[in-house]
Amino acid sequence: MKKFINNVDDILSESLTGFADANTDILEVKFKPDFIARKSKPAKSKVALISGGGSGHEPLHGGFVGYGMLDAACPGHIFSAPTPDQMESAANYVDSGKGILFIVKNYSGDIMNFEMGTDMLDLENQTIIVNDDVAVEDSTYTTGRRGVAGTIIVEKTVGSLAETGASLEECKTFGEHVNKMTASMGVAFTSCTVPAAGKPTFDIGIDEMEFGVGIHGEPGRKREKIKTADEITSELLGAILEDLKPNHNQEVLLHINGFGGTPLMELYLLFNSSKKILDQKNIKISRSLVGNFTTSLDMAGGSITITKLDQKIIKHWDSPVHTPSLRWKM
Amino acid sequence: MKKFINNVDDILSESLTGFADANTDILEVKFKPDFIARKSKPAKSKVALISGGGSGHEPLHGGFVGYGMLDAACPGHIFSAPTPDQMESAANYVDSGKGILFIVKNYSGDIMNFEMGTDMLDLENQTIIVNDDVAVEDSTYTTGRRGVAGTIIVEKTVGSLAETGASLEECKTFGEHVNKMTASMGVAFTSCTVPAAGKPTFDIGIDEMEFGVGIHGEPGRKREKIKTADEITSELLGAILEDLKPNHNQEVLLHINGFGGTPLMELYLLFNSSKKILDQKNIKISRSLVGNFTTSLDMAGGSITITKLDQKIIKHWDSPVHTPSLRWKM
Repeated sequence: MKKFINNVDDILSESLTGFADANTDILEVKFKPDFIARKSKPAKSKVALISGGGSGHEPLHGGFVGYGMLDAACPGHIFSAPTPDQMESAANYVDSGKGILFIVKNYSGDIMNFEMGTDMLDLENQTIIVNDDVAVEDSTYTTGRRGVAGTIIVEKTVGSLAETGASLEECKTFGEHVNKMTASMGVAFTSCTVPAAGKPTFDIGIDEMEFGVGIHGEPGRKREKIKTADEITSELLGAILEDLKPNHNQEVLLHINGFGGTPLMELYLLFNSSKKILDQKNIKISRSLVGNFTTSLDMAGGSITITKLDQKIIKHWDSPVHTPSLRWKM
Repeated sequence: MKKFINNVDDILSESLTGFADANTDILEVKFKPDFIARKSKPAKSKVALISGGGSGHEPLHGGFVGYGMLDAACPGHIFSAPTPDQMESAANYVDSGKGILFIVKNYSGDIMNFEMGTDMLDLENQTIIVNDDVAVEDSTYTTGRRGVAGTIIVEKTVGSLAETGASLEECKTFGEHVNKMTASMGVAFTSCTVPAAGKPTFDIGIDEMEFGVGIHGEPGRKREKIKTADEITSELLGAILEDLKPNHNQEVLLHINGFGGTPLMELYLLFNSSKKILDQKNIKISRSLVGNFTTSLDMAGGSITITKLDQKIIKHWDSPVHTPSLRWKM
């Protein structure tokens, strides 16, 4: 297996230790149960935002712990939900008295374990569920739609709102609004290889792609021959815009996300393909994000995410953020 | 070929167009001849820093154009040197009256074309040559050592110094100092695939790695069976420290760089492997950078770079920077 590892069982702990040591100014990592927490306590009481999910999607979620975004993240094993004791420990550690709000991608395992976590903490109705993937309803690990690259947009904007001292109710309502304004879809050229399995998750022909793939290699809408970037983009955007039904002259955030094995050069080319189509439809890209943010280990491929913008989303997207993998204005 | 492309001949122009449109607040891209330039002109006259080289190493160099780093970058075709007219046009565009300084990785093609560019501009002795790769002397495309991931450290620190209004001589001397304090070495698990070739640059066995590989797939020191992350790190650091000969309690910047196809999780694991060894040797990691910064398209693998720090390098590493792929404190 072609990976930088020592033993399969130690990947997560060794990687988290490296992650902590490389970001000592921003965060700390606690072990057993494992969680990542913001190092600098907030100046005043604020809603504590906690996310988490299986590892293997880095920088999601740990890379977004820090000022203006998450207070903590709970990393499960690769592609496995974190356990309830991780949520409980993280919540107790970062609670500053104004409540705890969880941001969870819509996978059955994550939903179940975060529910157990909130039960242990005696919390009710304090979870934002992200389900931006328009590819399929009900997938291998999901009832309803999957949560994918749109999660970063929810985490950034709600993180900013929480920083202003907004109430838990306000943060939750806003997060659910951002999720509703957001839609994504992706395509895989190759499978990822989960280290514990030691071989690709799925087989795919040398000239094939999985259209609408999930970030764990779940099947999408169809398996087909590779098309041009413009053709792929046209189909992905078609599905996304059918869901979002943007107005004429709608302002949007366009996020091109790589799955881990695709060069940045190709992601910028996808941005260009997307802009050509959005220009034709009088949809205005007023904010953008291009890079590997919600990955699937070493999978080649990527996804397109669009968020319909309003003044409140723009304000909280533009505000300062200081995390390992997203930082601006500070 | 499993890539997001339309036509092989249009990859660079389409990608650069997307890159420009995704970063309209920071930079602009000019075509024929192609160069990327900072959008906001400096408030006062400063030395203009220009880098460039073959494309396929993104975010290097275009991703580092912006306040506190490069004034312009000249992208050649994939793995091909930019042409002298690119350097000439870029220099004329960003010249603010205090001189032009080029930062060039040590590859014969780049050196030759940048020399022609400086001749066309009637400039002499205004180039910093980066040659941080300790793997081999005299390689496929190089006389002497290759320039690799250490380039970003030269660009960041000299960029900061130039921003203070320092003279051309001072910037050049400092850049050469940072280059001397910096050493790198990498390992490849897979070849990259250059789009125009349509197949991997080199063959490599399923259980083999190329130790000391170059960022275009040039041969390194040896081809051998894959080892553990700790073993690989020990060998890479051995070569780097033999070159740098750090003092006891030396403070260093540790940069773990991915070649494009390796997940962030593994790069943080490499950081951990490196820290364990450096701790034993009483070498103190006081600054760090982990991610895909100097890539080789979709190559799986990565490199380790160490810079011996002094107060001046620390000051110019820590200072504000605002580019597409490196930004902090603003």
